[in-house]
Amino acid sequence: MVYLTRKAEFSASHYYHNPQFTAEENARIFGKCNNPNGHGHNYTLEVTVKGAVDPRSGFVVDLKKLKDVMNREVLDVLDHRFLNKEVPEFLTQIPTTENLAIAIWQRLEPKLKAAQLHRVRVYETPDLFVDFYGEA
Amino acid sequence: MVYLTRKAEFSASHYYHNPQFTAEENARIFGKCNNPNGHGHNYTLEVTVKGAVDPRSGFVVDLKKLKDVMNREVLDVLDHRFLNKEVPEFLTQIPTTENLAIAIWQRLEPKLKAAQLHRVRVYETPDLFVDFYGEA
Amino acid sequence: MVYLTRKAEFSASHYYHNPQFTAEENARIFGKCNNPNGHGHNYTLEVTVKGAVDPRSGFVVDLKKLKDVMNREVLDVLDHRFLNKEVPEFLTQIPTTENLAIAIWQRLEPKLKAAQLHRVRVYETPDLFVDFYGEA
Amino acid sequence: MVYLTRKAEFSASHYYHNPQFTAEENARIFGKCNNPNGHGHNYTLEVTVKGAVDPRSGFVVDLKKLKDVMNREVLDVLDHRFLNKEVPEFLTQIPTTENLAIAIWQRLEPKLKAAQLHRVRVYETPDLFVDFYGEA
Amino acid sequence: MVYLTRKAEFSASHYYHNPQFTAEENARIFGKCNNPNGHGHNYTLEVTVKGAVDPRSGFVVDLKKLKDVMNREVLDVLDHRFLNKEVPEFLTQIPTTENLAIAIWQRLEPKLKAAQLHRVRVYETPDLFVDFYGEA
Amino acid sequence: MVYLTRKAEFSASHYYHNPQFTAEENARIFGKCNNPNGHGHNYTLEVTVKGAVDPRSGFVVDLKKLKDVMNREVLDVLDHRFLNKEVPEFLTQIPTTENLAIAIWQRLEPKLKAAQLHRVRVYETPDLFVDFYGEA
Repeated sequence: MVYLTRKAEFSASHYYHNPQFTAEENARIFGKCNNPNGHGHNYTLEVTVKGAVDPRSGFVVDLKKLKDVMNREVLDVLDHRFLNKEVPEFLTQIPTTENLAIAIWQRLEPKLKAAQLHRVRVYETPDLFVDFYGEA
Repeated sequence: MVYLTRKAEFSASHYYHNPQFTAEENARIFGKCNNPNGHGHNYTLEVTVKGAVDPRSGFVVDLKKLKDVMNREVLDVLDHRFLNKEVPEFLTQIPTTENLAIAIWQRLEPKLKAAQLHRVRVYETPDLFVDFYGEA
Repeated sequence: MVYLTRKAEFSASHYYHNPQFTAEENARIFGKCNNPNGHGHNYTLEVTVKGAVDPRSGFVVDLKKLKDVMNREVLDVLDHRFLNKEVPEFLTQIPTTENLAIAIWQRLEPKLKAAQLHRVRVYETPDLFVDFYGEA
Repeated sequence: MVYLTRKAEFSASHYYHNPQFTAEENARIFGKCNNPNGHGHNYTLEVTVKGAVDPRSGFVVDLKKLKDVMNREVLDVLDHRFLNKEVPEFLTQIPTTENLAIAIWQRLEPKLKAAQLHRVRVYETPDLFVDFYGEA
Repeated sequence: MVYLTRKAEFSASHYYHNPQFTAEENARIFGKCNNPNGHGHNYTLEVTVKGAVDPRSGFVVDLKKLKDVMNREVLDVLDHRFLNKEVPEFLTQIPTTENLAIAIWQRLEPKLKAAQLHRVRVYETPDLFVDFYGEA
Repeated sequence: MVYLTRKAEFSASHYYHNPQFTAEENARIFGKCNNPNGHGHNYTLEVTVKGAVDPRSGFVVDLKKLKDVMNREVLDVLDHRFLNKEVPEFLTQIPTTENLAIAIWQRLEPKLKAAQLHRVRVYETPDLFVDFYGEA
């Protein structure tokens, strides 16, 4: 059983706002992130899959297929987008790093065949990241 | 004569669009960056000043003052902003990394007292950066 | 259940010495780290908390509060200090990276409210780090 | 119980080829990595050991001994080598990152005395790494 | 006048050997790098171009064209190759980082149109790099 | 003419104090760095030499000799030391990053034979560094 992790990057913008909060609550809880014009990040995504090593190839997963799934299911959807306006999950949900990690898990998990998704890690900045393991 | 460089980071969003280009030209020249909703980056700024070392302090510049100038003149203006909509220079100019480096130079240069501004470097991503030395 | 990690840095000095060891043992076991004048590091601290995502904010923890606790309980105490002389835990304990990670856990764990402390990671250099999960 | 990780680097070359595959299969599955002349990487190795902190030294493991074991059992064998031609495990096995992580575990695990091996992580590039915990 | 730098990576293997040296000289001068099986690196390439900013696009150079030139003239030739055996310059020249930087300059310089090549930087490892400015 | 840069690291402690300043001036100008117990950093040193490439070796400088000079003249003197107390230059001079860069230049420049010293860069933290080119 080995765990293989592939990194990728995407650039997106977002802002934090809960329409059920008052303006004062939004400002207090979300601070500068509440600016409705949005601001952006170079997100780094780490996708970890686990499985046994195929003795014929030496691979736990076909890296080309993993790359294709990550591109099609995640990067093509998120890269160079304003998350709140253009990504379905975030039309009704706040695009925090926590919610991004969960959304990326939900997009990837049903599409991975050979290997099992183990962890999604999302860095919003080099100093802040979130891990999601699919735990309820 | 020594050169001292201080790094800082800011997160902002932008998009690339020239109203004098046709839609087709904007799409061809700017690609994904032409999305009017904007996308974002964690920019890294490096500011380099040069000067003689003050023998009493061992400093070429008072770091606290340099930090204050960088915060007041640059970071407070750019951080968590949509550059095209909220930063004066980019209401009429395209916020490319090139133009950002020049704008930051123009904001900092008149405000630095003791030491002389030598270079402004702006990283848009870890793989792309622009240097400006104030050369015409 | 998500895991959120915030990084911070502090600069401190320390040395390694056990008064119950002979001079020869201290020299052999601790090498260059035994120099009583001390030497220093730019430590990097990673604090990981875990919990459910609050559906109203999208946060597992209020980042501002996490930052305040980390500053008050850890960084204000350790930053720009000689650990052996100025930090209570290390008046009687050797300030190895192992003991630093445990001390930081013990400082943070009782002060975190909403989310649960999961891991403290301390990098002494980019090539050496210690993880503590609160395990006895 | 703490976990201590030490990083090290080695430079090696390799290529991917399974003599039981057809030429077409080797090309399709391994792509550019199938070039029999080999290509190379700056590998980064992270070795994590776990154990209790010795109250006399403050160490979970004698770092000098850990370094010596890593050098003798791993780095001296792999560094500046063509893995397929010069390292016993890879005369008959494909030197993928997965198989490298397992081979390094098997070399280190029997040689570590005081502390227990917890994880071997191998980065082939900054964007691809494999973890092995000794799990069957 | 601004300077724009784009980074890229390639993986290659090489070894150092001068057929005019004795075996003893090759061993003494080149050490572990003299192993004829080769060893490898993840090279990082930084290409810097300089020029005026085009006021219509805000660009000093069309990044897509720069990327295409770098891929076609450099990366497609060097990536996943054994430099001594597969790259024309190094059939007769030792593929040191110095010679690599010069060879990359000579490949790129005649192909860049709009902007002027200013510097080629090649990292062999994170701790060793060479700059070439086209100076005789 | 090429420029070759080699990086190295050292860990040291220091504090800032000018005996000709009043206590209030020392506190105001040097802030937390004025703590006489000292604090520390993982310094990163970059040494750049320039010269022509020797056509027989492909080297601008014998890397082993450069490494030996850097170790003997700089790292053995500064690593794991309290700069103010143990390094001659800083018994009478404040060990700022500026003064460190100049002192390292003065130690290296007379000892380098084949190649010419071009630049000394010292990082005190990842966000602050000083360059010295030997300019008066």
